[in-house]
Amino acid sequence: MELEALSLGQYSFTQNAYSFGFAVMAAATLFFWLMKSEIAPAYRLAVTITGLVTAVAAYHYLQIMLSWSAAIDVTSGEVVATGKPFNQAYRYVDWLLTVPLLLIELILVMRLSKEETIRKSTMLGGAAALMIVLGYPGEVASSGGIRFVFWVLSMIPFVYIVYQLVVGLKASISAQPDNVKNLINMSVYLVIGSWLFYPIVYLFPLVGLTGGAAITAVEVGYTVADIVAKAVFGVFIFTIAMRKSQASESHDATHHETPSS
Amino acid sequence: MELEALSLGQYSFTQNAYSFGFAVMAAATLFFWLMKSEIAPAYRLAVTITGLVTAVAAYHYLQIMLSWSAAIDVTSGEVVATGKPFNQAYRYVDWLLTVPLLLIELILVMRLSKEETIRKSTMLGGAAALMIVLGYPGEVASSGGIRFVFWVLSMIPFVYIVYQLVVGLKASISAQPDNVKNLINMSVYLVIGSWLFYPIVYLFPLVGLTGGAAITAVEVGYTVADIVAKAVFGVFIFTIAMRKSQASESHDATHHETPSS
Repeated sequence: MELEALSLGQYSFTQNAYSFGFAVMAAATLFFWLMKSEIAPAYRLAVTITGLVTAVAAYHYLQIMLSWSAAIDVTSGEVVATGKPFNQAYRYVDWLLTVPLLLIELILVMRLSKEETIRKSTMLGGAAALMIVLGYPGEVASSGGIRFVFWVLSMIPFVYIVYQLVVGLKASISAQPDNVKNLINMSVYLVIGSWLFYPIVYLFPLVGLTGGAAITAVEVGYTVADIVAKAVFGVFIFTIAMRKSQASESHDATHHETPSS
Repeated sequence: MELEALSLGQYSFTQNAYSFGFAVMAAATLFFWLMKSEIAPAYRLAVTITGLVTAVAAYHYLQIMLSWSAAIDVTSGEVVATGKPFNQAYRYVDWLLTVPLLLIELILVMRLSKEETIRKSTMLGGAAALMIVLGYPGEVASSGGIRFVFWVLSMIPFVYIVYQLVVGLKASISAQPDNVKNLINMSVYLVIGSWLFYPIVYLFPLVGLTGGAAITAVEVGYTVADIVAKAVFGVFIFTIAMRKSQASESHDATHHETPSS
């Protein structure tokens, strides 16, 4: 990464995006965990994991900010690389943990049968971990050929996950209560939509996009995609859990009233 | 440890593994403690200690990361040893506290009689502490002979613990409820399986594995083994506690309904 190619404006803009990413993730975490007690017990596991995903992401944005500061110095208005590496791999460390978990939070909030929950969580979580592990060698490779090979390998679990979300979950989603069916569909498309950004950006260095503008676009783009896939997606999951809680409460109320009638 | 032998890629990969270790341990801790309130009171001690184990491990991964950063500098793409020592002994400090505790969390989640709980916790916890204490002098010894002597001494409590887990707990495990029996067996084999890594790695320097690849393999391997033995094992313990809680709740419900019928 040619950090010297950054203008002062690009350097600052990227730093501000990281800081925004950290603030969003940390705030989302606090929100989910503070509101957990307002959710019916059956959905607290999903909401707890939703907060874990944003908490882990907040930690990594902090590490990315520190690494960015260590790698770049600003001396009399000029961006100077310090020679210390900017550790881009923190994103992979983050995704390895958060991407399986965010798929699991979607499965959990749907409240499928125990067997289906375990089966779908294992399949989707495992495929997500594999996708990240296969992306890493290409990201740190110096050769464009190796980068491309691992892009192709990583796309196999990627396509599998998208297929499972769109086709594999179809029956389970249509069995969901009416007041959350749309929200669950939207959550699925939110994840897929935000994910499309990653494989495109991964190929940037191969097509010669390596200057200051490209670095800025990649870093800010990843941050926006992360915010959508974790914090915004998390708010959807939280809203689904809230609606289902209210439905189950009014159901309980009806149930309790029955004997007295 | 010849830190200069590390390539930049090996240095970064090891650093990322430590950071992943920290993130997993911290996330696991938050998960166990946030979900504690959803568990029946009888199993909250086990779940609290499960979180303690990962919390202590998270702290030590932070210390290991700081020590790693202090010991190694990267100047214009080259790995340079700063002359400050990399404190490998943080792992021993960690294990001295976490290994007895993780055996105790297994005993606690089984809910044996008070006498058996105390007896088995003391035996297994004591043997685990002895195993760590006997490993340390060999780890910091400069001579291969001394390293080997302490490896042998440390293997005595190691083998005793494995024997106690597999044979000594057999009767207690078969008395467990059916919906958790398999999970408890899997937890036992998870601990033993992850532990097998440690005595093998300990012997690496004796067989001449000391280069950059060996350092990376040892450090990443220890981190993976720690994640399995503490966080993944913890999720098993948590799941056992959750299932037993649900069983005791539905039992209570049945019990409460009986008088009114």
